[in-house]
Amino acid sequence: MQDDPLDRLQATIQARRSAPADASYTAQLFARGRPRIAQKLGEEAIETVIAAIGGDPAAIVPEAADLLYHLLVLLTDAGLALDDIRAELTRREGLGGLEEKAARQRAG
Amino acid sequence: MQDDPLDRLQATIQARRSAPADASYTAQLFARGRPRIAQKLGEEAIETVIAAIGGDPAAIVPEAADLLYHLLVLLTDAGLALDDIRAELTRREGLGGLEEKAARQRAG
Amino acid sequence: MQDDPLDRLQATIQARRSAPADASYTAQLFARGRPRIAQKLGEEAIETVIAAIGGDPAAIVPEAADLLYHLLVLLTDAGLALDDIRAELTRREGLGGLEEKAARQRAG
Amino acid sequence: MQDDPLDRLQATIQARRSAPADASYTAQLFARGRPRIAQKLGEEAIETVIAAIGGDPAAIVPEAADLLYHLLVLLTDAGLALDDIRAELTRREGLGGLEEKAARQRAG
Repeated sequence: MQDDPLDRLQATIQARRSAPADASYTAQLFARGRPRIAQKLGEEAIETVIAAIGGDPAAIVPEAADLLYHLLVLLTDAGLALDDIRAELTRREGLGGLEEKAARQRAG
Repeated sequence: MQDDPLDRLQATIQARRSAPADASYTAQLFARGRPRIAQKLGEEAIETVIAAIGGDPAAIVPEAADLLYHLLVLLTDAGLALDDIRAELTRREGLGGLEEKAARQRAG
Repeated sequence: MQDDPLDRLQATIQARRSAPADASYTAQLFARGRPRIAQKLGEEAIETVIAAIGGDPAAIVPEAADLLYHLLVLLTDAGLALDDIRAELTRREGLGGLEEKAARQRAG
Repeated sequence: MQDDPLDRLQATIQARRSAPADASYTAQLFARGRPRIAQKLGEEAIETVIAAIGGDPAAIVPEAADLLYHLLVLLTDAGLALDDIRAELTRREGLGGLEEKAARQRAG
């Protein structure tokens, strides 16, 4: 699904990881390591939460994009890819839906 | 991109929103409203952060799937869709890359 | 309890709020408003979470101090004070303990 | 400062840790371990953020109390105490104020 902007972004991120001498923000993030990447993911989630509660839906879009970008960096750093998440979602479809699984988790 | 599991999940979520009498976890989440949906997104991000710092990459996958699921619920509740985020990512490609934009934001 | 460092810090924060022309970080934070203050609280919580999972207890101390500082800024911005939280904790003692209340909330 | 409700709460939490057979929420939290305690701290921070953005200051009080409770559990689990945070805050006073230190951190 290389024509999906999410996969194009992932390909860019993967290339930055292979070229750590790169001075890009992405390469710097990889250089700082997993805890820092995880921290950034958490911070972007906080910003998405705050935008979500505000009155302007358009304000959610850039925060959600930042959140997805940092999630892709995190997955790449862990040797994972968006397709691993897609496979998990497909697996849950077979189990009767993500939301049912989530509901059971909530109760657990 | 209906054959993308992310879009299939989004379609399911959108259908649950139109049928609020549904007893699914998703329908309950819509019924509880935006602050609760945002709270759940934040909680899943925390779980993803914690899984990311642990030593087992496989533990990240279900947390990232939960995070994406709740992000899709949030987008849907705000009248947005994953394609809005894809459009934002495509727009940033034209601006020279998401990571450069993100770097500027960090500094700002 | 003015000889408690927590209350001394709160007094400093309250003074900075009354003198918004102040160029301190605290005054700048008040000027940026509630969503920004809340965002910073969330970010410090993420950093505390990450420090907590690492192997070095000493690394938790500065993060917990930052978290408490931003919590005091948030309380002050909302017209609240640490004594309001102390009163809530005292009230919960009478109800049989915070932890029991918290447990019921978890189940709810 | 045992007459401070914060210290009384801490003493209760410390007692629950020494008696792990206890069926209290606190004892259960210790039994589940550090990542779970950290997760709960993060979740309470998210709830505090959401309450902070809402229009009702009174709604912040119980969330801030929950946040402090879980911070005390986390400190206790790591062999730390509120006095370690008080000492750090006192040390920062000598350095010219917490907020200046925080500002430098922000810029770093």
